[in-house]
This record gives sequence, C-alpha cells and structure tokens, in this order.
Amino acid sequence: MIDAFALDPRLSTETVPVGDLALSSVLLMDDARFPWLILVPRRAGLSELTDLTSEDAAALMEETRVAVGVMQALAQPDKVNVGALGNVVPQLHVHVIGRFLSDPAWPHPVWGVGSRNPYPPHARIQMVERLGALFGAA
Amino acid sequence: MIDAFALDPRLSTETVPVGDLALSSVLLMDDARFPWLILVPRRAGLSELTDLTSEDAAALMEETRVAVGVMQALAQPDKVNVGALGNVVPQLHVHVIGRFLSDPAWPHPVWGVGSRNPYPPHARIQMVERLGALFGAA
Repeated sequence: MIDAFALDPRLSTETVPVGDLALSSVLLMDDARFPWLILVPRRAGLSELTDLTSEDAAALMEETRVAVGVMQALAQPDKVNVGALGNVVPQLHVHVIGRFLSDPAWPHPVWGVGSRNPYPPHARIQMVERLGALFGAA
Repeated sequence: MIDAFALDPRLSTETVPVGDLALSSVLLMDDARFPWLILVPRRAGLSELTDLTSEDAAALMEETRVAVGVMQALAQPDKVNVGALGNVVPQLHVHVIGRFLSDPAWPHPVWGVGSRNPYPPHARIQMVERLGALFGAA
C-alpha cells in the first residue's frame, strides 16, 4: 500500500493555500512581515531533493522559477531567497521569499527571526487573489 | 562584448575549490563547524534562478542533487539544507549544508550564526580529496 500525500500540519497551520501547480501546492506564509511563498510537491515521503525522481526534480525547479517570477511581479523585492531546509518540518518544501534591504531580518535569513505576524483578513484575501492571478498568467 | 564569468571575491576568500561540474564550480566553505558546499554556475551576470536558461536551470538542479548525495555520503547528516539566498553575495550560488541535531546552529539556518572557523590545513586537504573522490564517483 502506498501512503497518500498529506500536507504537514505545521505547514497548513502557518499558511494559506494559493493553488496547485502540476507538481506542487503553493502556499502563502501567513506572515505580513515578508512576502513568502512555499511550494510543496504533492508526493508522499519526500524529505531531501534526492528523494525526487529526476522528472519531478526538473518540474520542481521550473515551478520554483515560476514562483520567483511571481514574487518579483508581486512585490518587486531587492532579492529573492530560495531554500529547502526542513530542520523543523522535514516534509520537502521550498521557500520563495521576497527580501528588502528595509525588511526586519535583512541581510540575515528570515527563518527563526522574531514572531510570525499574520495578515489582517482583508489583506490576506487580497494577497491570495493577486497571487492566483499572477500564477494563472505565468 | 560579453562579460566573462568571474567568481565573486568574497566567495573565493571564504572557500576552497573542490572541482568543476559541467555547469557549476564546487567550493568547500572553509568552516569546520559545518560540512558545507557551494555550487556556482559559471555564467556571467546571474543573480536569481530566473536569470538561468531553462537548460541551465535543469542542470543546476541535477548538480545540486549530486551535491546533496555527496554530502550524505561524506557526513551522514540528519538533514541537508539547500539554499540560494544572495543577500550578501548577489552572484548566484547554491548552498548545500549538512546539518546535525548536535550542530551549533540547529534548528536554525547556519548563515549569520557565529564566526567562521577555518579547517586546520591537514583536515582541509583531507576534505577536498574526499570530496573530489565522491564527486568523481557520483
């Protein structure tokens, strides 16, 4: 019996779903401090990039590049940070974070810095709608 | 006139060359606290993953996966962290870092934590030789 994919509960708690690409689900980190997407390949049992098939790895790279482009269109950041860490949540997921010289963590990474600051509901809805349009047009 | 690729001086100062893959040069971060590789695609003017051609992006993903496998064989870490940040050095480069529950930054990222601790020369030579053999066999 093959285990079905299920999103890690910690990822689902801290994020809002944006939509599904061919391989990955796209989540918006519910943290108004940073424009922050997370891609999660919908395959069970993945932790490292080496757990992907070669085809899925190529697809994840292309979907990551789409997410970087969407982030640039959304937020016009000074830099985009891309990372697959998994120290806290081992389920394979890729962060795509828009960074600004003026943001509260610059030039350090955002992970582990301060506390998550959820969006006000009206702003969260706007973000998800705008992201849906940008991914749809990508 | 097309600018030639040149390794960022900060990357060359803090690392030791391991060897060249088809697209990327492999560097060992000269920091004995963490087993830490850096891949740098030898193309001029790259900063974001979206600056790569589609073919180079696929090659970088495959070379990153090779480096993850080498890291696992080298150090048997509890987790591998992969990241392309570029907040300090904008030249596109991919970190592949072996992480341990017992390491001095766990579970946080390694970037910006404490101070780099260069290898003793005899250990640096051993690391580079072992890495060369592992990449050669990959």
